[in-house]
Amino acid sequence: MAYIDLGVDETREPGIRGLLRYRPSTGKPLSDLAEALLRGDSPLTRGEREYIAAYVSSLNDCAYCTGSHGAVAAAEGMPADAPVTDKLRSLLAVASATASGGHAVTPALIADARSTGATDLEIHDTVLIAAAFSMFNRYVDGLGTTAPDNPRAYELGAAHIVKRGYLPPS
Amino acid sequence: MAYIDLGVDETREPGIRGLLRYRPSTGKPLSDLAEALLRGDSPLTRGEREYIAAYVSSLNDCAYCTGSHGAVAAAEGMPADAPVTDKLRSLLAVASATASGGHAVTPALIADARSTGATDLEIHDTVLIAAAFSMFNRYVDGLGTTAPDNPRAYELGAAHIVKRGYLPPS
Repeated sequence: MAYIDLGVDETREPGIRGLLRYRPSTGKPLSDLAEALLRGDSPLTRGEREYIAAYVSSLNDCAYCTGSHGAVAAAEGMPADAPVTDKLRSLLAVASATASGGHAVTPALIADARSTGATDLEIHDTVLIAAAFSMFNRYVDGLGTTAPDNPRAYELGAAHIVKRGYLPPS
Repeated sequence: MAYIDLGVDETREPGIRGLLRYRPSTGKPLSDLAEALLRGDSPLTRGEREYIAAYVSSLNDCAYCTGSHGAVAAAEGMPADAPVTDKLRSLLAVASATASGGHAVTPALIADARSTGATDLEIHDTVLIAAAFSMFNRYVDGLGTTAPDNPRAYELGAAHIVKRGYLPPS
């Protein structure tokens, strides 16, 4: 149970879903951000972006976000055991540094990403995804929301997101 | 100079401003989030919310965000040396925990905030502000953007924000 009364049934709306509904004024821009960042135009595939999101969430030990974005990544062709290109591996290093703190991203890490073919926009999107999940993970766990144990719950949520996107709660 | 070519004059558009202009599809929801969270309806005053934002930014050693939100807090009546109520002090402890990681926010910290009169919505907004600045700080420093040294630059930016709000780049 969340630390505050969200006025929702958390078994039906776990993790961030109850939070987005509790506070629609912030729920709308948070949903819009997820949609633009993870599904909007980008040189990174949706699968790669969701994989980065799930990776950062696992570093932050956020069960809900790891489960949900891991399931979307898998649905978009990037399961946890997918082969990782050199470029994605170098971007994951940038994402890991970003998760630990903005100043941990060094010119050397950026140069390494460029040497694998990463463009400015790919580096930008990687840093912003890692930064955004540094927020989403803290929001979800800082308010003590519930994470389902059952992988099937995340698969069902992922199927909905793949079809409909990150819509704000209606 | 930022790690990537933002296509802007960073002396005129330092910190997050160049990033918001570089990538308008994410700049819009990021600006909308700042506007709703820091200036929209809340039981916390604008000064208190900006103070929390500046505090988290200082914990993350983000010079641009500390300078800009510290200046807005001061313009909204909460300079760095303002007296802090017991309630705000307890919320700053929640914010500090959130900044260090979602799981660092304990039931004891929430109970302490409640004992000073903090409501569910105040606790929610505090956690989300701290989480959001865990993102903004990482975005700004993770891409190596420039922070002005001159306090006057932040005061001018703050005067604009107090008058116009966090508008997306046009």
